[in-house]
Amino acid sequence: MLEPLKQQVLEANLALPAHHLVTFTWGNVSAIDREQGLVVIKPSGVEYDGMRAEDMVVVDLQSGAVVEGCKKPSSDTATHLALYRRFPGIGGIVHTHSRHATIWAQAGRDLPAWGTTHADYFYGTIPCTRLMTQEEIAGEYEHQTGEVIIQTFIERDIDPLQVPAVLVNAHGPFAWGKDAADAVHNAVVLEECAYMGLFSTQLTPQLSGMQPQLLDKHYLRKHGKSAYYGQ
Amino acid sequence: MLEPLKQQVLEANLALPAHHLVTFTWGNVSAIDREQGLVVIKPSGVEYDGMRAEDMVVVDLQSGAVVEGCKKPSSDTATHLALYRRFPGIGGIVHTHSRHATIWAQAGRDLPAWGTTHADYFYGTIPCTRLMTQEEIAGEYEHQTGEVIIQTFIERDIDPLQVPAVLVNAHGPFAWGKDAADAVHNAVVLEECAYMGLFSTQLTPQLSGMQPQLLDKHYLRKHGKSAYYGQ
Amino acid sequence: MLEPLKQQVLEANLALPAHHLVTFTWGNVSAIDREQGLVVIKPSGVEYDGMRAEDMVVVDLQSGAVVEGCKKPSSDTATHLALYRRFPGIGGIVHTHSRHATIWAQAGRDLPAWGTTHADYFYGTIPCTRLMTQEEIAGEYEHQTGEVIIQTFIERDIDPLQVPAVLVNAHGPFAWGKDAADAVHNAVVLEECAYMGLFSTQLTPQLSGMQPQLLDKHYLRKHGKSAYYGQ
Amino acid sequence: MLEPLKQQVLEANLALPAHHLVTFTWGNVSAIDREQGLVVIKPSGVEYDGMRAEDMVVVDLQSGAVVEGCKKPSSDTATHLALYRRFPGIGGIVHTHSRHATIWAQAGRDLPAWGTTHADYFYGTIPCTRLMTQEEIAGEYEHQTGEVIIQTFIERDIDPLQVPAVLVNAHGPFAWGKDAADAVHNAVVLEECAYMGLFSTQLTPQLSGMQPQLLDKHYLRKHGKSAYYGQ
Repeated sequence: MLEPLKQQVLEANLALPAHHLVTFTWGNVSAIDREQGLVVIKPSGVEYDGMRAEDMVVVDLQSGAVVEGCKKPSSDTATHLALYRRFPGIGGIVHTHSRHATIWAQAGRDLPAWGTTHADYFYGTIPCTRLMTQEEIAGEYEHQTGEVIIQTFIERDIDPLQVPAVLVNAHGPFAWGKDAADAVHNAVVLEECAYMGLFSTQLTPQLSGMQPQLLDKHYLRKHGKSAYYGQ
Repeated sequence: MLEPLKQQVLEANLALPAHHLVTFTWGNVSAIDREQGLVVIKPSGVEYDGMRAEDMVVVDLQSGAVVEGCKKPSSDTATHLALYRRFPGIGGIVHTHSRHATIWAQAGRDLPAWGTTHADYFYGTIPCTRLMTQEEIAGEYEHQTGEVIIQTFIERDIDPLQVPAVLVNAHGPFAWGKDAADAVHNAVVLEECAYMGLFSTQLTPQLSGMQPQLLDKHYLRKHGKSAYYGQ
Repeated sequence: MLEPLKQQVLEANLALPAHHLVTFTWGNVSAIDREQGLVVIKPSGVEYDGMRAEDMVVVDLQSGAVVEGCKKPSSDTATHLALYRRFPGIGGIVHTHSRHATIWAQAGRDLPAWGTTHADYFYGTIPCTRLMTQEEIAGEYEHQTGEVIIQTFIERDIDPLQVPAVLVNAHGPFAWGKDAADAVHNAVVLEECAYMGLFSTQLTPQLSGMQPQLLDKHYLRKHGKSAYYGQ
Repeated sequence: MLEPLKQQVLEANLALPAHHLVTFTWGNVSAIDREQGLVVIKPSGVEYDGMRAEDMVVVDLQSGAVVEGCKKPSSDTATHLALYRRFPGIGGIVHTHSRHATIWAQAGRDLPAWGTTHADYFYGTIPCTRLMTQEEIAGEYEHQTGEVIIQTFIERDIDPLQVPAVLVNAHGPFAWGKDAADAVHNAVVLEECAYMGLFSTQLTPQLSGMQPQLLDKHYLRKHGKSAYYGQ
């Protein structure tokens, strides 16, 4: 079932080592079939080398039950499901421990929009979540990770379609997009911006955000109905 | 038309990922035929992988109109044209978001000449432009980007042939040269100098510029009528 | 003798340059056959390129005498033996001068647990040893290097099976594991954590450790009887 | 003439891009035939790709005159010759603008011995030269570059055989060794130490040098008549 989606999820997962976003078996990508309410996700702790489409696991969006697949789904599956349920516009999710995004996450800091590279993809600051509480960690931890992401976007009134990434405090980044490939694309850009922001703020410690008009200009020249970038 | 120039522009564009200066479809290179008043430039948002000479777009230097090509030209075309019109000595232009040059651009800082690597190619500080105004961004943004570069060189009395690069504030670098390949060459050196400068100033925060005589010596041993570097 | 173990040790050694943990002939991996009391280790100062299983040297756990092999064992052999004798649960050891772990070792600083990447493999701070004394260096230096590591774990009450790595002050890292491959795996993760920690603490200089509950959660979801990560 | 030496110099030059020490045509390696008083050196400004042994240039140690070769020798030839004349124990020299050694050179700072990686190859601090004077730069600049290096070693009483590298202020590193390959080997280690030192001093700003006994131990376990590293 869902063979084309499995193939897309496989290819998006294989793009992670190709873009140097993961080490060993770290990281995972999923995608959703909204009509059927099913999510396809990478199996847990499996090597990228030799991974096949049939290794992908199909889980139910609501219950999280495995619907198809002979392997266990990613241990982060519950985080993905929480995000799919509350962010209805997204079609793919990726989680990595990519070095520079993780540096910001470990530092517990938001990544501000400091240049047009950021503005081309993210319409403002990429938020870092608050630290999870003892109760959240002791409970359904992976589900609660999703909840704290959702809370961050709601409380700070950020549209997850316009800022398709988050830094989970003391953990690492999640990114998403219209499908699995788009989610990986955003994860790559996040890593670029995290690298550049790290050192821009060292050169100019009091650096404030970029001009709001420039943020608008770059985001909107690539997104929305007035976009004119690309073919 | 302009087949040899298209081939040069193609090869210069393909040199960008080879030198790790770009991610995805970012970056663009152009070159000019001064006699015909025509500019050849990369198409907008097209993958480097599989790009062909016939994908290059020919535009009119004065009007910016597409003269030949079935794809849309780079969204930064108006910046290139503004520079070609005001810097008559240059034959090729490149724009990237290369990591370390962009770090300086995002930090809003000039890159001083701190060593002979810089002096071999750039005869002094590589300037960072002022922030663009709301009006400039709201207007013909890409053209205005060119204008703010030109203003920077005029007001600070910098010869663009002697300092063939600029950092556009909150954006990234442009570099140029006698042709497309030379422009890319300068963009690579800029990236090297931006990397080394970033950390040299961390080791010695009060670092001033290099000796003016050493700057002269290195620049002039490679450029001008007394040059003696190379074959 | 011990052909399968030699093959494992060879492969673990070859994994060092593959993971960019070593330059030239630097670094060494060993593994132990506990039943026979024999250790297999890389020869001293030999190129990785072209290294064969029969180049591995077999030494006696107690005496350090070469039992088989026509090459001299690694100059760090006595350090490995000291660790095998005092840490009975470990089966493989690796020593490298990998860049970022060595940066922490040279700085004489512990590497705190600042995120889940660390917590997935190391159950708390990775300690840096005290500086070795003049007497220790002048005596059986490589053996004493092992002793100062052991002293660090005893005095600070750290379980070497739960924190399978150490930073030797002014020198570099050792890591270990249940076998040679596991030791290299831990050395790779240590290098990732050392890189990320270096810059996390630059972004947030007053950074304290991660939540103890999150450390527990991530370490225990991969280790021990309640582990649920992987297949 | 000197065909085997030309081959060695060629291979040592080709090792520079292989070890990521150079960009474009930057850098150069030479070696000397002490009996004949002849030096073989890379030609000036020639691409590494496609370089052949017969492209190497033979120059006279005393006069600097080209004895054989149809290309111009490296523009840094006079620096090499000055060093060969005053450091009779060295057989090969390399000059690069490798990133991290150059960062220290641009910062005008000595690279202290902060760990055993350094101590394994360099018996103490790698010195940075003083800034060159206007007269030195205006005169025989490349020869004077050699003289300022020599002056640094004499005034600070450093043995160039025990510390086979220098940082030329506002310029970059030179390294040397018993032959061309050994010089390149030392240049690679210098680059490693420069990288690690840069960030070690960021983690521990008040970092002093390593224990003198540990410096002795590591240097002497690899060099001199009591060496026991390697086969």
